[in-house]
Amino acid sequence: MKKHIVLLPGDGIGPEILDSSVAILRAIASKFNHHFTFETHLIGGAAIDEVNEPLPKETLAAAKEADAILLGAVGGPKWDQNPSDLRPERGLLAIRKALDLYANLRPVKGFEKLLHASPLKEEIIKGSDLLIVRELTGGLYFGRPSERINNGEDVVDTLAYSRKEIERIVKKGFESAQLRRKKLTSVDKANVLESSKLWREVVEEQSQNYPDIEVEHLLVDATAMHLITQPNRFDVIVTENMFGDILSDEASVLTGSLGMLPSASLAESGVGLYEPAHGSAPEIAGQNIANPIAMILSSAMMLRYSFDLNEEADLIDKAVASCINRGLHTADLQVENGTQVSTSEMTDAIIDFI
Amino acid sequence: MKKHIVLLPGDGIGPEILDSSVAILRAIASKFNHHFTFETHLIGGAAIDEVNEPLPKETLAAAKEADAILLGAVGGPKWDQNPSDLRPERGLLAIRKALDLYANLRPVKGFEKLLHASPLKEEIIKGSDLLIVRELTGGLYFGRPSERINNGEDVVDTLAYSRKEIERIVKKGFESAQLRRKKLTSVDKANVLESSKLWREVVEEQSQNYPDIEVEHLLVDATAMHLITQPNRFDVIVTENMFGDILSDEASVLTGSLGMLPSASLAESGVGLYEPAHGSAPEIAGQNIANPIAMILSSAMMLRYSFDLNEEADLIDKAVASCINRGLHTADLQVENGTQVSTSEMTDAIIDFI
Ligand SMILES: CC(C)[C@H](C(=O)O)[C@@H](O)C(=O)O
Ligand SMILES: CC(C)[C@H](C(=O)O)[C@@H](O)C(=O)O
Repeated sequence: MKKHIVLLPGDGIGPEILDSSVAILRAIASKFNHHFTFETHLIGGAAIDEVNEPLPKETLAAAKEADAILLGAVGGPKWDQNPSDLRPERGLLAIRKALDLYANLRPVKGFEKLLHASPLKEEIIKGSDLLIVRELTGGLYFGRPSERINNGEDVVDTLAYSRKEIERIVKKGFESAQLRRKKLTSVDKANVLESSKLWREVVEEQSQNYPDIEVEHLLVDATAMHLITQPNRFDVIVTENMFGDILSDEASVLTGSLGMLPSASLAESGVGLYEPAHGSAPEIAGQNIANPIAMILSSAMMLRYSFDLNEEADLIDKAVASCINRGLHTADLQVENGTQVSTSEMTDAIIDFI
Repeated sequence: MKKHIVLLPGDGIGPEILDSSVAILRAIASKFNHHFTFETHLIGGAAIDEVNEPLPKETLAAAKEADAILLGAVGGPKWDQNPSDLRPERGLLAIRKALDLYANLRPVKGFEKLLHASPLKEEIIKGSDLLIVRELTGGLYFGRPSERINNGEDVVDTLAYSRKEIERIVKKGFESAQLRRKKLTSVDKANVLESSKLWREVVEEQSQNYPDIEVEHLLVDATAMHLITQPNRFDVIVTENMFGDILSDEASVLTGSLGMLPSASLAESGVGLYEPAHGSAPEIAGQNIANPIAMILSSAMMLRYSFDLNEEADLIDKAVASCINRGLHTADLQVENGTQVSTSEMTDAIIDFI
């Protein structure tokens, strides 16, 4: 199979963990006789520094031609005081919108060997394995107006959705549940928001088309509680953009292995952008100590979702699991009787397995 | 001191826990020679059943004349299928708005003896003692438009704030921090929302007037993570309405004693509405097994915030602590070597101490 992948290293540890992923993908390509080509472009703070915009035109043009995109991370204190349109996050928001990456998939699953690092008691977190399906190109993030009014004395943001936008993400939620344990939790605030009422209506309509899926509606505030008290009651959670942002970050710390969580942002075409759930960790950048696993698992998601290469993706997942089970870990984690390794040592160990 | 208190029992366990609070307040009144008068009115599902509106005019008129309001709880599956304007929560939202109860204070603090019930590991939750100051009458909850558009195909909600609305809640945040450990965390989504940018600007401006307070800005998604991984890094959190709804519910389960958490919703005049952080628990209503403590501590907050009766409030807090420390607990909790008691037994034990 021939595939062209655009690499967006971004900021902080982005470049080094992306290097790890590329090394893994080369190993996969050679083992399975695929032909992956790579092309690197600027985004985020790195792009601001070089060309004074967070998403350069060349980057977007290349991304539009790519079969898939791997992104390291964007952001850092260096750019925190910049005006909004010159902030690294703007690059990320802009590429999501430009490529219509409407479905953000964030699996949260702990590694047995690392569960001890969870802030939750073992009996609570044990067995948790959930997937958050977050709408990524609508709602408060992109609604207009979003501006100061009355001479800057007042301000307004807009939470807007079209029925079509809700339908496609809700369908993605149902389809994701079909591939898993067949339970869908739709999260909204239907006792307050009109948008949530339409959301709930669409979920009810669509549920007719997925009779095999058990659906429940849960308010966002209640969900924020249940994620902590009963994380293993969830299979797939589907929700709008801002709720998804908050809940997926909340969920990401439950298993104690934030450095291991991948994500996928998908367009209807099948093109996707894949990035770790964690941030750019500028304080440890360039020291060869960052945990590359979230990025590596993100590239496994790419093989699975954008290229339909399930066997290859499985092999990466297995290789990672094997390294963790043997006690290998980077400096962000403590493992009893484990072996602490560098970014490149972890990468090599995973390649060895492959 | 003479004070007139409006009682809104509402639904589920609301009436019985409110009875407990009134009994405690009578004990306080007789000990300290105060004259508290009480007047009971309908709200929520109970009001819908009787007069077909969630906030009857008589209730609102009485609340407007009161020195303070105690509310049990509203809601239940019985009314879940009602149209929006006939839902119990509407009564709560309407009274918040009508009385301009802009500041919702939700303290989260565990009882040593109950910390074992926390979903978090003891070393993580230990020492946590935080206060969430949530804006309660603005933002997405009340912004207009909030409606279907384009023949019901699209939908819009509005997140609107005036600078004045932000200023008064931010001040309340600073003032609350001054009464505590002098640390304020302002939570927003300033990398995405214009309203958050104005919010952050106001916090920066106001911080000039409170040089004794250490201020930090934290994104709402990061806050959702830190509440779980490092709850004891927080003192006071101040945030807008929807973020506050989600984060305060998230925080409420951390200590394992949701049934013990009070809340206050304050107007600029000093009038306040006090209610437990938990819901109406219809499944256990009328059995004399509900935990009355969140409601009782809410009435202690009333004494403190609306009547300035700090000694009296302290005594209630101490009485509750003493009962818990002696191992008394209602059926919602397990306590090793503890004594399980009914709602009324718990109430009597607290009165005995007073
Ligand atoms: C960087 C930021 C704009 C972004 C978001 O809020 O979507 C991030 O938090 C995420 O979840 O990917
Ligand atoms: C009942 C509901 C409208 C309310 C809210 O969202 O404010 C509740 O969740 C709360 O936090 O008091």
